[in-house]
Parts: sequence; C-alpha cells; structure tokens
Amino acid sequence: MKKPSLNLINSPKDLKKLCISDLKTISKDLRQFIIDVVATKEGHLGASLGVVELTIALHYVFDTPNDLLIWDVGHQAYGHKILTGRRDIFHTNRQLNGISGFPKRSESEYDAFGVGHSSTSISAALGMAIASKLKGENKHHIAVIGDASIASGMAFEGLNHAGVTKANLLVILNDNAIGIDPSVGALKQYLTNVKKGTQKQDNIFEALNFNYSGPIDGHDLPLLISELNRLKSVEGPKLLHVITTKGKGLKQAEENQVKYHAPGKFDSKTGDLLPQKTNGNEPPKFQDVFGRTIVELAKKNDKIVGITPAMPTGSSLKYMMDVFPDRAFDVGIAEQHAVTLSAGMATQGFMVFCNIYSTFLQRAYDQVIHDVALQKLPVIFCLDRAGLVGNDGATHHGVFDLAYLRCIPNLIIFAPRNEIELRNILYTAQLGLNKPIAIRYPRGRGQITDWQQPFKETPIGKGVKLKSGSDIAVLSLGSIAQNVTKAIDKIKNNEKVSHYDLRFLAPLDENLLHDIFLKYQTIITIEDSTVIGGFGSAISEFCTKHKYKNTIKTLGVPNQFIEHGTTEELHHICKIDSKNIKTLLDTLI
Amino acid sequence: MKKPSLNLINSPKDLKKLCISDLKTISKDLRQFIIDVVATKEGHLGASLGVVELTIALHYVFDTPNDLLIWDVGHQAYGHKILTGRRDIFHTNRQLNGISGFPKRSESEYDAFGVGHSSTSISAALGMAIASKLKGENKHHIAVIGDASIASGMAFEGLNHAGVTKANLLVILNDNAIGIDPSVGALKQYLTNVKKGTQKQDNIFEALNFNYSGPIDGHDLPLLISELNRLKSVEGPKLLHVITTKGKGLKQAEENQVKYHAPGKFDSKTGDLLPQKTNGNEPPKFQDVFGRTIVELAKKNDKIVGITPAMPTGSSLKYMMDVFPDRAFDVGIAEQHAVTLSAGMATQGFMVFCNIYSTFLQRAYDQVIHDVALQKLPVIFCLDRAGLVGNDGATHHGVFDLAYLRCIPNLIIFAPRNEIELRNILYTAQLGLNKPIAIRYPRGRGQITDWQQPFKETPIGKGVKLKSGSDIAVLSLGSIAQNVTKAIDKIKNNEKVSHYDLRFLAPLDENLLHDIFLKYQTIITIEDSTVIGGFGSAISEFCTKHKYKNTIKTLGVPNQFIEHGTTEELHHICKIDSKNIKTLLDTLI
Repeated sequence: MKKPSLNLINSPKDLKKLCISDLKTISKDLRQFIIDVVATKEGHLGASLGVVELTIALHYVFDTPNDLLIWDVGHQAYGHKILTGRRDIFHTNRQLNGISGFPKRSESEYDAFGVGHSSTSISAALGMAIASKLKGENKHHIAVIGDASIASGMAFEGLNHAGVTKANLLVILNDNAIGIDPSVGALKQYLTNVKKGTQKQDNIFEALNFNYSGPIDGHDLPLLISELNRLKSVEGPKLLHVITTKGKGLKQAEENQVKYHAPGKFDSKTGDLLPQKTNGNEPPKFQDVFGRTIVELAKKNDKIVGITPAMPTGSSLKYMMDVFPDRAFDVGIAEQHAVTLSAGMATQGFMVFCNIYSTFLQRAYDQVIHDVALQKLPVIFCLDRAGLVGNDGATHHGVFDLAYLRCIPNLIIFAPRNEIELRNILYTAQLGLNKPIAIRYPRGRGQITDWQQPFKETPIGKGVKLKSGSDIAVLSLGSIAQNVTKAIDKIKNNEKVSHYDLRFLAPLDENLLHDIFLKYQTIITIEDSTVIGGFGSAISEFCTKHKYKNTIKTLGVPNQFIEHGTTEELHHICKIDSKNIKTLLDTLI
Repeated sequence: MKKPSLNLINSPKDLKKLCISDLKTISKDLRQFIIDVVATKEGHLGASLGVVELTIALHYVFDTPNDLLIWDVGHQAYGHKILTGRRDIFHTNRQLNGISGFPKRSESEYDAFGVGHSSTSISAALGMAIASKLKGENKHHIAVIGDASIASGMAFEGLNHAGVTKANLLVILNDNAIGIDPSVGALKQYLTNVKKGTQKQDNIFEALNFNYSGPIDGHDLPLLISELNRLKSVEGPKLLHVITTKGKGLKQAEENQVKYHAPGKFDSKTGDLLPQKTNGNEPPKFQDVFGRTIVELAKKNDKIVGITPAMPTGSSLKYMMDVFPDRAFDVGIAEQHAVTLSAGMATQGFMVFCNIYSTFLQRAYDQVIHDVALQKLPVIFCLDRAGLVGNDGATHHGVFDLAYLRCIPNLIIFAPRNEIELRNILYTAQLGLNKPIAIRYPRGRGQITDWQQPFKETPIGKGVKLKSGSDIAVLSLGSIAQNVTKAIDKIKNNEKVSHYDLRFLAPLDENLLHDIFLKYQTIITIEDSTVIGGFGSAISEFCTKHKYKNTIKTLGVPNQFIEHGTTEELHHICKIDSKNIKTLLDTLI
C-alpha cells in the first residue's frame, strides 16, 4: 500500500480509504501545506490551522458533497478547499482569477453555500435541512460556526427556529475563544464556564431544544470521528461543542492569534513574519488615522465614546480601548446592536464614533434609518473598508454604501480624499452637527506622511476644486480622487480638464454644482461605488432637477458583483484606474 | 380627599401621590379610557390593555422621565402616553398632525427612545445606561420587551453585551406568548416551560449573566410594585419576567388576540367589531391576492414554499399555512434568518416566496445582497406594505426599498399596478427566473374585484403603455399608476398626455425608454418611494447614460421622513396624489 500523502487526496473519497493513523499523517501534511502556501501567498492562516482535524473528520465521516457542509464566514475553509480538489490551485487563493478566499458555490460542488459575512451558516443549513425533509432525502446538514459568530443575532435567530423543527441539522460550535479579535460578551463567558465545568450541562443550547454534546478536544481526530459518527444517528437539531486552538501547529500563530489571523508573508519554518517592504516613512493606514485621531480628540472631549462590532484591530479602535477602556467598546459581531447602542448613548449627549466596515453596515441598515436618522441623533459612523477592498472579494467590497445611504433623510455623507481630510472631519463631527454623519474611507494607506496637522473645521456640504481647466470637469468623491489626479498629470495638454472633489454626497454642494454645470458642457463623475444609485446618480439627479442639458459620463462600479484581486486590478476592471481615466480624457480633449 | 380619577393624572407625579387601592381605580379607568378611544378612533388595542398595571407600576415606582423607560415596538405604550400628559390629545392618535401611534422623542420627554420596529429597546436602554455610568448619574434604565420581540437576533445581541457590563439595566420581559400573531420558536417553548415550572430556574438569562426574577403575574399591581421596588437596589443587568394577557379586561380581545391586536372600530361595551362599510364587492387586499394566489400555485407546484417573519396574518401567508403546514413557515421576528433560510432552501431547488414588509426588509439588507443576490439564488421576495403605509407613520413607510434594492446586481425588481399583475408575477416567478426577484406592493386594497383571472406569464423587463398622448409622458411604477390615471381622466384636453407603467425597475425596459425619450420632450416620473435613489433617479441615470436632453420632472417621496396620516393625506403631502398630478399636468399642457 502506498504511503499516505496529501498529494494523493484529490477528493474526500480518497480520505475514506484511509485508516485513522493515515488520517493523522494527512492532517500533518495538510497543516504544513496551508502554512507553506500562506507563508508565501498570504491569506488567512490561524482559523484554518485550528480546524485541520475537524475538516478531515467531517469529510471522512460524512458523504460530502451529498451531505451539505457550510463553513461560517469561511476563513477556516482552506483545508476544506485543499481536500476537495483545489490543492493544486490553492496557490492562486485570493488572487485575480484565482480561487476565492471563501467557500463559493460557483467554485465547487463541495461549497454548499457561499460565505464571507458572519453567522449565516445556521440559517442556510437549516433551509437545506428543511428542503431535504420536504424532498424525502436522507441527508446530513452541517454548519461549522465559531464562538464569536454564534453570538451574533442572526445565528440566534437560526438556532431559535431550528429548535422547533425536526430538521437533521448538526451545528458544530468551533470554540476557540476568538474571532479576528478575542471573543466578547456574556455567551463567551458562559462557554468558558462550560469548558471549565463550572456551568451545568443543562445549557443554553438545550434550552433552545438542541441536543448538546461536548465540549470535546477538536484536535483529537479519533474522538472527533467517533463523536461525529455517533451524531449521524441522533435525530433533529444537535450541537457539538468542539474546543480548538486558533493557529494550532505553528507556535507563533498559537501565541499571537490576532496577528496570525492573516499575518502577511512569513517564514514557514520559524513562523517569523517577514519584514514588509517599506521605506520607513509610509503614509498611515486610514484606519490608523481614525484610531490615532479619536484618541487625540477623546483626551480633550470627554463626551467622545467609540464603538466597534468585533473589529478593534481592523478599525484601530484598539488604540482608544487601550487609553480609555471605559469609553471604547467592542460589542462583538453585533452590528445591529452597535448602531442602536450608539443611538442610545447619543440621546444622553455623547459623541459616539461607531466604526463599522462599509460592507458590514449592510447588517445594520434598518438601525441607521429607524434608530439614528429618523431621530436625528448625531451618531458619527466611520465606515472603514469603503470601496473595492481587494482580495477579500465580492462578499466584502464596500460598494453599496453610497446608494443605500443617500436615500436616508437627515444623514450627512462625507468621503475624505486623504488622511488630513479624515482627521479634520472627525474633529468637526465631535464639535456637534446635530445630525448623524457617515464618513467613508478606504482600506489601506493614504498618501500623506505628515498628516498630524493642527485640526481645522470642515465646512459641511462644501466641495473643493483641485485643478482648474477650461472644458471638462471631472467630479470625484473621496480618495478615488488620486486616480483622477494621476490621470490628469499624465495628460500632456491637460489645461482643458478641471477636477473637483465634492467630498459631501449629502448635502450636495449645489452652489458649486451650479457653477460647474454652467461652466462645463462635459462632466465626468468617478466613484468607487455602484454607479447605480451612487455619486454619479446623485449628479444625474441634480442635472435633471435643475434642467441642465450637460453631457455626463458616470464612472464607477458597474452593475455586477466584482470578484477578488488587488484593489488596483479591480479599479482597472471597473475602469476607474488612472490609466482608464486618462484614456477617456484623451478621447474627450 | 378627592376621589382618584384618571382625569386628575396629568403626569406620573400625580400617580405617586396615590395609595395602592387608588392606583387600582386608575388602572380600571385607564383600561376603559383606552377601550373607549380605540373603539372609535381605531389603533392598537390588545397590547396596551395587557400592560395597564405594568405601566402604572413603572411610573409609580420609577422617577420618569429622569429614569429612562423604553417600550419595545411601542404598540403597548398607549397607557404610557395617556399617563404622561397626552390624555386629552389621545383621540388624535395616529391621525395627521395628531400624536404618533408609537413613542417618539419629539413628542414627549417621557418617550426616551423612538420605536416602531421590534427589538431595539435593550440596545437603546443599554446605551443610555452606559452613558449614565460614564456621567456618574444614578439613573434607572428600563426596557419593556415582549416575548416575540426578545426572540429576535438584535435583542439577543443587546442581552449578550449587557451581560458583561455592570450597567443599571432592567429588562422587563412582558410575556404574553403572542406578538401580532402567536409567538414561535424554541425560546418561546422554553419560556412556556419556565411558566409551567418544568424548566429549572438556572435559566437562559442567567446564563447570559442577568439577574433573573419571576415569572410573576403582570396584572397583580401590588406585586409588580413591590418587585420593581426591590429591583431598584439590585445592581447590574437584571430581567423581570412578567406574565400578562394581551387584551386583558375586554373579553373578546382576550379570546381573539390576533383580531384585537388592531381591531378597527368596535363597540366599547360589548367588544363586538362594528361592520365595516362595504358594498360587499370590494377589491381584495393586495396581501390576500398574495395569500390566495400562493395557495393556488402551491397546489400545482410542490417546489413552492412560503416564509414569513412573524406576519402570517398581515401577509396572508396564513392561508398557505392552513393548507400546506409543512411548506409555509412563520419564523418569528427574524428577518435576517428568514432571508438566508430562503437562500438555503433555494439552493436545493425550492421556489421560496419570502414575504417581508418593505420596511422590515431593511433588517435583512445584507442577507439580500450577500446570501441571495451574490449567489443568484431565485428567491422570490414579496414586499408587502411598500410605499406610504398611512397611520403607522415614519417608522413603517416602505419608501426606501427602490433605492436600496436598485443598486444590487442580479436582482429583478417589479411593482404590480393591480391585483392581476401581482397574481401574474407570482405565477411567472415560480416558473423559474434563475435570479432573485423583489415584488413590491402596497398596503390595502387594489381596484379589481374580478381578479382571479387565468394566469398569464409576465414578460420580464417589459413596461406597458396605459394611455397614448402627444407631448408629455408620465412614467409610473406600480400601483401609484392609479393616481396618474385619475389625474389624466380629470384633465379636459388630455390628448397631450401619455402614461406608461414601467413595472420593472430592474431590468429597466430600455427599448421602451428609448421610444419615450425620442418621442416626448417632457417626461414626468412618479413613485411612492424616495425620489433620491428611486425610480425617478433610475430614469435620470438612463437619460444621462444615453445623452438625452429631455426635461424630466421627478415626483415621489421628498428627502424627509414622512409622518402618519391616511395614505391619501400622505400622498397629498408628497404631491403624488391625483390632484397634485393634475395641477402639474395642467401647467405643462
């Protein structure tokens, strides 16, 4: 018999031929394979290392893809991808035209449900389980969900419904006490007590009518296999509580779980992070401009509080949490709660900076309308990762925000062009606007190293002219302006081109727009959000409303979901990169 | 001493002077006052009758408005309004320029937080409690939430956060086993077991680190008062479980709780519903066209399933639940779960009709994008109560849907003009579109009594001409067309006016639009949704994209929150009633 090797595993069928000791060999191989590829190609490391044994056990015990397996969020699904026919293309992970960093239905029949945002797996798996029952099919339906994700309201809704069905649903609670940052909340405390044995077995999941088992060691492959086999014959909704270690098998990843969630390039042998190529004087990340500035402001204004739903590191609110632990809150994966909590605080006179990634604010859309804007509460929404976010891809682009926010009355919408603008609007917002404001800024770094300038108040609703020209006006919103500037700089005879940054989507600078519409026949709008309903749409509405007859060309994200790639590649695909802008301008001049 | 009387209670201060037996008199008065006013003025009855004693006890024990009291949803807050200075204007409830049917900050300092949508109270009260702590203020913060509302994910998020704070938060679980329809879900079963004493006291709320007490009889005023007084000195988050009867004190309302949630006019003595003025041959409600048609279709297509988040009566999915109990699901107040459950079922080949009120789909916006549209799953969203809904007011208008849905790729958006169109699109959708579709229709009745015509397939993306004319084209979307038709009918020389119903917002009928833009210089769009980002915006975008120079006038809901009133009054305010349309057309002809 051949020596067992990951290289021979082309589908879960190949796993099933192996004995337990061979599977252990495969788990070693798989862990090393993930480490080796992610070390050079980057991606999400810790989550997948933590579920190597669980992944093997699931595909060994269950009849995938006939049995339906859903990975919540999907950061942990690298092992799943490698075992289900994608080993040899795994090096293309998260790259343009490569495989997605998340499970995706169009990529493999083993990816039962596309994921990316948290806490969808129970609802989706329950839907499939109910469907199987209706069809009379005898399938298993498995949702693997982390302890941070199961604490989100949506997961609770799924559990609450599942508990009154007889659906063949197995929820595997992958409890490693961490999401991207350490888990928070009462449920997390409760699970810790269960692990310590200080909580009775008659537990919260049993109260919801789930058959509960565990907690068991999620790195004990034989135990996992026997427990999963046992659960195959348990009817109705059931939950297996599995304890794992995020980053398992790479010492540094186990010890520094936040850093090694997505560590960038590292030495696959030692785990040491590779030094990033930098000249030592790079512009800061926008998130850090937020994080540093809110601390600066909070020192002088004791009414400032900060809220993040589970992204203290990603949003850099951690800086404030360190300095003002009583005034900065990580509320867990709970965007809805985060927004209404902010509204509640705002009624009591606090200046609440509620920092939510643009794509995740979709989770709290109703709360923005119903709890904040309708009551005109001056919550300051800081929308990080707005626009095209790059390698996280279609699930994570923050491209709908302008369209879905623009229709909400009372809401100011601002997009800073650079770090200084972000800094100044944060300063301005905490002076008191008597209205809510949404400040959207992109993932990644700005352009200005010397950004910690004295604060200046930003006039609300005022755009600016960045370059004067005679014939054509380019109107941009926010940081995408730099692509326009680069394009204009490359045009030889650029004296015909003007460039304006409107800065505010709401209220629009109507005075400036009248000047522009009267002066230039041709107007180009550019944004890193959907052209349908976004900034260009607002300019078209202005044109209609005031009966102008100018020619408007709107550039932005087209009416399709944009996949993964570098931000630059995606800008190119959407024709909002400097090269495409230059080409367009060349044809018009 | 004067005889105690509700007429002498002008604020909670007046309550505090009374002894328990006087308070019992007030509770009788209050209950009768609510019955008398709602019997003639209409509104929500059962919920407020159920909390008469609780309302009195809360205002008696706590120092409102200094202590902050939040009523979840707010249907139950009539007694609160009457006791807090609004007794003499209570008859204006839900009427234009009258008081709101829900607590509202701008209406009274006693309304600590505006409500309407479910499950916001814990988050808002927690925000206030944290704020008080930061300010060093010694206040109480009370959220009164029903058993249906506490089962929603957002409430769980609030509990989960509160449990790790030391905030002075009192959650009162008003457990009457019913929302608008009977409560569902595992938590409901659990609470029933607690009430029966078959569940251990070490309960789900204690697992979340709440100090739990109860269950107690919520109609026992002295017990409520003593328990609330006791809880004043209990530190940290605490939950009091109170058992009440919805409709308490009016026999018929207790016996038929769904009907008497908002019964319309009734005899205040007997409780008998007054016969509605009808000629016996009225057009059906749109919701019933949905409810009846899905049953008809489901009989022939066994792949059809129906889902409602807690609105079986309001959406009329109850008809299908009666006939096909295995294929129609009330999942409780869980819009997020409802959508992703639908997506899960759709992956298995089911034709899922997911019926959610337009305003409540705001709660599941991310799930529509991330779980349905991105995966191109053919979920059929039936958005009831789209447009201006009338007396429920600002929290409930379904006016943002066109703007927030239009930017989502892969999503078909259709608005039926009448019952037959609704019927035919439901038929068409279940034939299989390979894409999701959102079908939006209004609250209330259509115009066609003979609506049960044989099914006809609706061509996707095709608008229709309703009237030919020479100079001006009016473009409407959906049922608002009737206002246009009425306006045109009233114009003497209406041969200049054409009227088109675009029907599909996405995909737009571009062929038809080209014809229109080429033929008519002046184009008017009309919609019962936000002009910003909505249908008119789409037409402006079309004009921009194709470099037309036509004059477009966009009518719709302006950039402000619209309050309560009859739908007709609100159409008038938004200038989309037939009278205003006629006036506009008269000036243009």
